[in-house]
Amino acid sequence: MGIPQASRRKIPRDLENDYTADAAEARRNFLRARTEVRLEHLSHYSFDPSILRGNIEHFTGVAQVPIGIAGPLLVNGEHAQGEFYVPLATTEGTLVASYNRGMKTLRQAGGVKTTILDDAMQRAPAFVFESAREARTFGTWLTEHFAEIKQAAEATTRTGQLRGIEQYFASRILFTRFVYTTGDAAGQNLTGKATAAACAWITGNYQGITNFYLESNFATDKKSSQVNVLRTRGKRVVAEATVPAALIEEHMHISGERLFRARQVSNLGGFMSGANNNGLQSANGIAAMFIATGQDAANVAESSAGLNFSELLPNGDYYISITLPSLIVATYGGGTGLATQRECLELLGCYGTGKVRKLAEIVAATVLCGELSLGWAILAEEWVTAHELLGRNRP
Amino acid sequence: MGIPQASRRKIPRDLENDYTADAAEARRNFLRARTEVRLEHLSHYSFDPSILRGNIEHFTGVAQVPIGIAGPLLVNGEHAQGEFYVPLATTEGTLVASYNRGMKTLRQAGGVKTTILDDAMQRAPAFVFESAREARTFGTWLTEHFAEIKQAAEATTRTGQLRGIEQYFASRILFTRFVYTTGDAAGQNLTGKATAAACAWITGNYQGITNFYLESNFATDKKSSQVNVLRTRGKRVVAEATVPAALIEEHMHISGERLFRARQVSNLGGFMSGANNNGLQSANGIAAMFIATGQDAANVAESSAGLNFSELLPNGDYYISITLPSLIVATYGGGTGLATQRECLELLGCYGTGKVRKLAEIVAATVLCGELSLGWAILAEEWVTAHELLGRNRP
Amino acid sequence: MGIPQASRRKIPRDLENDYTADAAEARRNFLRARTEVRLEHLSHYSFDPSILRGNIEHFTGVAQVPIGIAGPLLVNGEHAQGEFYVPLATTEGTLVASYNRGMKTLRQAGGVKTTILDDAMQRAPAFVFESAREARTFGTWLTEHFAEIKQAAEATTRTGQLRGIEQYFASRILFTRFVYTTGDAAGQNLTGKATAAACAWITGNYQGITNFYLESNFATDKKSSQVNVLRTRGKRVVAEATVPAALIEEHMHISGERLFRARQVSNLGGFMSGANNNGLQSANGIAAMFIATGQDAANVAESSAGLNFSELLPNGDYYISITLPSLIVATYGGGTGLATQRECLELLGCYGTGKVRKLAEIVAATVLCGELSLGWAILAEEWVTAHELLGRNRP
Amino acid sequence: MGIPQASRRKIPRDLENDYTADAAEARRNFLRARTEVRLEHLSHYSFDPSILRGNIEHFTGVAQVPIGIAGPLLVNGEHAQGEFYVPLATTEGTLVASYNRGMKTLRQAGGVKTTILDDAMQRAPAFVFESAREARTFGTWLTEHFAEIKQAAEATTRTGQLRGIEQYFASRILFTRFVYTTGDAAGQNLTGKATAAACAWITGNYQGITNFYLESNFATDKKSSQVNVLRTRGKRVVAEATVPAALIEEHMHISGERLFRARQVSNLGGFMSGANNNGLQSANGIAAMFIATGQDAANVAESSAGLNFSELLPNGDYYISITLPSLIVATYGGGTGLATQRECLELLGCYGTGKVRKLAEIVAATVLCGELSLGWAILAEEWVTAHELLGRNRP
Repeated sequence: MGIPQASRRKIPRDLENDYTADAAEARRNFLRARTEVRLEHLSHYSFDPSILRGNIEHFTGVAQVPIGIAGPLLVNGEHAQGEFYVPLATTEGTLVASYNRGMKTLRQAGGVKTTILDDAMQRAPAFVFESAREARTFGTWLTEHFAEIKQAAEATTRTGQLRGIEQYFASRILFTRFVYTTGDAAGQNLTGKATAAACAWITGNYQGITNFYLESNFATDKKSSQVNVLRTRGKRVVAEATVPAALIEEHMHISGERLFRARQVSNLGGFMSGANNNGLQSANGIAAMFIATGQDAANVAESSAGLNFSELLPNGDYYISITLPSLIVATYGGGTGLATQRECLELLGCYGTGKVRKLAEIVAATVLCGELSLGWAILAEEWVTAHELLGRNRP
Repeated sequence: MGIPQASRRKIPRDLENDYTADAAEARRNFLRARTEVRLEHLSHYSFDPSILRGNIEHFTGVAQVPIGIAGPLLVNGEHAQGEFYVPLATTEGTLVASYNRGMKTLRQAGGVKTTILDDAMQRAPAFVFESAREARTFGTWLTEHFAEIKQAAEATTRTGQLRGIEQYFASRILFTRFVYTTGDAAGQNLTGKATAAACAWITGNYQGITNFYLESNFATDKKSSQVNVLRTRGKRVVAEATVPAALIEEHMHISGERLFRARQVSNLGGFMSGANNNGLQSANGIAAMFIATGQDAANVAESSAGLNFSELLPNGDYYISITLPSLIVATYGGGTGLATQRECLELLGCYGTGKVRKLAEIVAATVLCGELSLGWAILAEEWVTAHELLGRNRP
Repeated sequence: MGIPQASRRKIPRDLENDYTADAAEARRNFLRARTEVRLEHLSHYSFDPSILRGNIEHFTGVAQVPIGIAGPLLVNGEHAQGEFYVPLATTEGTLVASYNRGMKTLRQAGGVKTTILDDAMQRAPAFVFESAREARTFGTWLTEHFAEIKQAAEATTRTGQLRGIEQYFASRILFTRFVYTTGDAAGQNLTGKATAAACAWITGNYQGITNFYLESNFATDKKSSQVNVLRTRGKRVVAEATVPAALIEEHMHISGERLFRARQVSNLGGFMSGANNNGLQSANGIAAMFIATGQDAANVAESSAGLNFSELLPNGDYYISITLPSLIVATYGGGTGLATQRECLELLGCYGTGKVRKLAEIVAATVLCGELSLGWAILAEEWVTAHELLGRNRP
Repeated sequence: MGIPQASRRKIPRDLENDYTADAAEARRNFLRARTEVRLEHLSHYSFDPSILRGNIEHFTGVAQVPIGIAGPLLVNGEHAQGEFYVPLATTEGTLVASYNRGMKTLRQAGGVKTTILDDAMQRAPAFVFESAREARTFGTWLTEHFAEIKQAAEATTRTGQLRGIEQYFASRILFTRFVYTTGDAAGQNLTGKATAAACAWITGNYQGITNFYLESNFATDKKSSQVNVLRTRGKRVVAEATVPAALIEEHMHISGERLFRARQVSNLGGFMSGANNNGLQSANGIAAMFIATGQDAANVAESSAGLNFSELLPNGDYYISITLPSLIVATYGGGTGLATQRECLELLGCYGTGKVRKLAEIVAATVLCGELSLGWAILAEEWVTAHELLGRNRP
C-alpha cells in the first residue's frame, strides 16, 4: 500500500486537539481497516468529546452498559436521608432484582441506618537508608517536622488535607502512609501530587536518604489489603438494620434463626478461605454503582472488602450489618462529570461538592440490601433441600 | 396527585414485556417526575432492549463509558498471536496512555509471552453434620461417588465439566469446592445450577446431613481470597517478557537495575501490607477491559489478584512477569453479546465460542504492559528526586 | 592469658565423642570463665548425654522447665479414649489452672470428642524454567511420572509414604508440595530426605530445569500460613463438645447465650486483625504440651493455627469446637525419646510407634478445654462490668 | 480400694502450701499409681519449688530440655555489644550447628547490626453499642479522655505506661488496642490488669455501652496476625549484615548472586502461600532461646513472624536483614527468674531490669545467623543438583 509499516500500526492521534468526534472517527476507521468490525454501536454517544479531556486518551467511542434501577431504598443516614432509586450498571442478570428485593424488605423494616466512621486517602512513599538505625532517626525527624511537611503537601491542593503520616518499618526501609482527607474527590491524584511535593521538601531538607520511591505498594491502591481493612482507605462506612422476625417470615418464609445459622457457616468459610470479605456480594452492588456514577471501577479491588456482622436477637429479630472499610467514592472530579455518570449522580442528589458522604452512605445501604437478599436466596435452596431431606415432597 | 402512595413509589414494570424502549422510557419518566433530572444521555443507546433479557432487570438506559484504545500490543501466546488494539473503558486520565506506553516498549522487546496454566470455576457448598466424624465419613463417600455426582452435575449443562471436588474440613462442617471447566462462559451461573443438581442427588442419596448450604463463602465469588490465589478461579495466566538493557535505557532513561531495586521494595510493601497483589496496577487494565468487553466488573475483586516476579539478568536485561491466578473472563454469555461489548470482543477477534483463552491471554499481556509502565513512572519520580538529592538541578 | 585469641573464643568440642558429661562440663567451664555465671542448675540433669546424639550439638546442660499436671481430661476419641492427666511445661502462672478448670467442666459435659481429618507432611521444592510454558509442561510430566517419583522418594524411608504432589504455578516457577504421611514421626527430616531423593531422580530424568530449590517457602515449615490452614500440615484434628445449659450456669454463673455472643465478637476481631486463629489460646496448651513431651517447640508457629466454631443450640446448650489444621506431633523420633519427654509421653500412654494419633487427639482435647475456660474468664470480666453498668453493686 | 471414685481422680493439692517438694511428690505418686510410669527423671530438679509460685500450678516435676550453645555471636547493637554465647534449648538435631555456622560467617563479616524500632504491648477490649453511630461517639470521647484513662491504667502498675489507644471500627463495635510500654516485663499480665482498671473507669464514666469485653481477639495474644506485623507487638527489631562476596565464596563455595536468586523464589513462595514470614526459620532460634531463657514459649506463635529483605550489591556483596515485628521477650518477671532460665539470661548479661532491649537484639541477631545458614544449606542442595544437571559428576 506504500504506507510505511510504522505509520500503519500507530494509532492515529490529532496533535492539535485529540478530543473531537473526528479524532474518534479516525481511530474507528483505523480499527475498521484492520479488523473489519463495523463499530456501529461504539460510535453512538451523546456528548461532546471535549468533555473527556483528563478522563481518557485515544477516545474512540463508548461502552454502552445497561442501567437498571432498584428502589426505593430507604436510608436513615446522616448525609443521605429518605428514599432513593439506585442506578445499577451491570450485565449480570438478577443483580438488579436481587438488590431490589432486599431494598423492599429493609424499607419495610424501617430502612437502613448508615454511619461514616473514617475518611482517609493515602499515598505511600518508602525511604531507604544505609541501615535501620538511620531509618528510625528519619522517622523521628518526620514526626517532628510534620507541620512543615503538611504545609508543603497542602500547598498543591485546595481540598486535600494531610491528616498524618503513618510509619511502618522493615529492614532499612521506612514505609510511610501519608493520610489525607480529600473532600469530594476520590483523591488518588491529589494525594499523589501533594505527597510528591511533600517528599520534594523532605528530600531537600534531610540528608542521608539512600533511595526514595513515591509509592511502595503500601497505599495499597487498587489492591485488596489487610492494611486498608484495618486503617481505612476512602470511606469507612457501616450500614445496619434490624429485620423483625415477622417480616422475615412473611417475606422469606424462613426464620431469622436459619438466616443466622447460615451466617455462622459463611463467617467460617470466609475466615478459612482467606477472603477479604466474610459477607456475600458487596462487589456486585459496588461495581454496578461505580460504573453508573463515574467512579473508578478499578477501585472495586479494594472497595469490595467487607465485614459482615449479624446477630439473632432474643426476640427472633435479625440484626444485620455490613462495614465497608475501604470504599472509594467521589462526587467531584474523575468520571463524575461525564454525561450519563452525572445524570446518575443527580438521580441520587449526589452530584458535585459536599455530596460525597451522602453517596458513600447510599452505596453502603445498597450493599446491605444485597447481603440480605443473597443470604436469603442461598437459604431458599437450603430450605428446598431440607424439604427434600424430610421427604415431604416425594410421592 | 390522586395516585396512591404505594404505586407512586414502585418502579414501573411492564408485566408483558419489560425489555422495550417504552418500558425503559416509562421508568425514566418515573425518575424524572421524582428527581427533575432530565436523563437525556441515559436514554441514548443504539440497540434494541430486547437483547437485554437475562442481563438486567428494570432497564432504564445506559451508562456511556468512554473507550480509548491502546496498542498495538504484541502477544506471543498460544491462543493470542500477533498484534492487538486493546479497547479500554475508563474515566481515569493517563490510564490508556500508560498502557499504551508499556505496549510500545514490550513490542520492541519482542512482545509478551502468555501461558494459561489452569482453568477452574467453583461453587462451594457446605455440609453440616452431627459431628466431625460424620463429616469425614461423608467426605469419603463423596470421593467414592464422584462419577455419579459428576453425571448429575453435568446433566444440567452443555459445556460445563466437573473436574473434581476439593474438601476443606473444619468443625463438623465439610466445605467443598466443586471445580468445573466452563468453556467460553465465565461459568458462575452454570456451576451454580450444576452444583445444585449435584447436591440434590447427594442429599437424595446420603443420610445424615444436618444442614446444607449451596454456597459457603469458599468459592469465593467476587471476593479476593488466598484460596483462589492458591487454587485458581477462572484462568490462571502468566504474561512474561524480557526487556533488553539497551531498550530500558533508551525508553526509560534508567537502568534495569533501578527498576529491579524498586521492585524489591514493592515486594516487601505488598507482603507487609497484606495485599493480594505485589504488583502495581493490574486492576486498572482489567477493569477497563472488563467494562469494554462485557465481563462482570464485580469480578475485578478477585481478578485483580496478581503475583509479580521479576529478575535482573546478569547482562542487565530485565525479566518481568505477572501471574493472574484468578482471572475471570468470558467470550460467550453474560454481557459479551451486547452491542458495544460484542464489538470490542470482535476488535480482539475474541467474540464467541473457542475464544476465551485468547481473551485471557490478551488481558494478561495488557496487564504486564501496565506493570512495566507504572513501575517506570514511579521510578521517574525517584530519578528526578535522585537528581534533586545530588543537587544537580539546584541553582 | 597466653591462649591465642581464636582458641579462646571457639566453643570447646570433643572430636572423639562430644556427647559426654565431660564435654558438657568443658563447655560450662568455658562459659564460666567468660561470664562468671556459676551454672549450677544448668548442669543438673539425670540422663546420660549419649542419648542426645541427633538431638542437639554443643550440649552444655538442661533447661529445667516446670511441669504441672491438669486433669483428668475425658476424651472420646478414636485413638484416645478415657481419662488423661496432661503434663504441661510452662512458666506462665494460671495456665495449668485454666486448662484444669476447662477439663473439669467438659468432663462433666460428657467429655471431648476428637476426630482426625487429615494427616500430611510436606517438603516443597520449586523448579524454575525458561518460561511459564516449560513449567507447565514439567507439571504434566510430574503427574505422569508420579509412580516413579514415589518409588524414588520412598526408597529412602521405612515409614514415609508420598501421598501426592501439589502444584502451584507462578511466573516461570512451579512450586510443589510433596505431601507425605510419616507414621509416628513428625516427619520434617524424613520428607526432606525423601524429597531430595525424588528430586535427584527428577533432575536426572528431566531436561530443561533452569534452577531447582529443595525448599521454596511453600512447606511452610515453622511458619503460620494460609496454605497450611487450607491443606493441612501434620494432623488436622477437631475437638468438640456440647455443654448443657445447666452446667454452664452452675460452673460459670452465666448463660450459654453470653458465651456465644462474646464468641461472635471474637470471630470478627480475629477476621479483621488478620489472625491465623479466631479462637483464644491454643498456643498456650500446645506449647506447654510440646515442651513436656519432646515435640519441636518451633512448630508452635504453625500448630497454633485454629478455627473455633461454636453454636448456641435452641435449648440453650453450647456447642463448642476447635479445629487445629496444622498440628505437628510425634511419638517417635525427635525429642520424644529423651528422659523426661518420654516419661510425659508414657503418662499419656503415647510413647512409641502407633501412638501419634492418640497424642494428636489428646492435644486437641486439651486445647478445647482452654478455649472454654478462657472464654469464660473474659466473660466473667464482662459479667462484673455488666453489673457495674447496671449499678447493682454500687452503694 | 475403698477410695471413693471422685477423690481417686482428683489431682492431689496441698491447700496450705502447694509449692513444696512433698506436694510435687504426692502428685507424682498419684500419677505413678494410675499409669505405672516411674517418673524418675521428671523428679530431678535442682531448685526449691517455692520459687515457682506465680509460674505454675500443680507443680509435679520438670522437663529437662537439652541446651546447646552457639557462638560467639558478634552483635553491634545499641544495647547488646560484643560477643555472646547463645544458649539454645532444643531437641532438633543440627539446629545449634546451623546457627553456630551462621554466627561464624557473620562474625567474620563484621557482626550483626541490630536496631529496635518500636516497643508495644497490647490489651484489646471491644465495646458494643446500639449502633455504629454510638460507637463513633464513644471513640471521640475515648480520645478526649485519654489523660484520665491513662491515669486509671497506670495506677495499677509501676512500669507500664499507656502510650495510646488505637481504634478499629466494625459494625456497632469499637475494637480498641490499648498500647503500652512495659519495661523489662513481657507485659501481658500488666496490660491486662491496667486495661481492666482503665475499662472500669470508662464504664463507670460513660453511659450507653451495651456490652464490653476485656479482650476481643485484636491483641492478638499468642496468635500470628497481620495487625501485629503492621503495628508491632513486643519489640520490633531489625538485624542486618553485609557479607562480602569473598567471604560467601570462601565459606559457602557459592556466589552471593545465587543466594540472592534463591531469596527471590522464597519471597514469592512466602507471599503466595500466605505465610506470616518470608524468611526461613526464625521460629527455630526463637523457640530455642525462649525455652532456655524463661520466655513464654506460646509467644512463638506471634514472635516467629518475620520480614526478610536482602539485596545483592553491585560489588557482589550480599546485604541480608530480618525484621521481627512482634518479638515478645522479658528479662524480668514470668519465667525469667527460675533456676536455669536465670542462668541462661546471665550468660547473655541479660538478667533483670534494664536488659530487655539487649535481649531482643541478641535474639534478632541470632535469628539472622540462622537465616543465612539455612539459605546456604538449601542452596548447597541446589548446587549439588546444578552439578548433576550439568553432568559433571557423572562417569
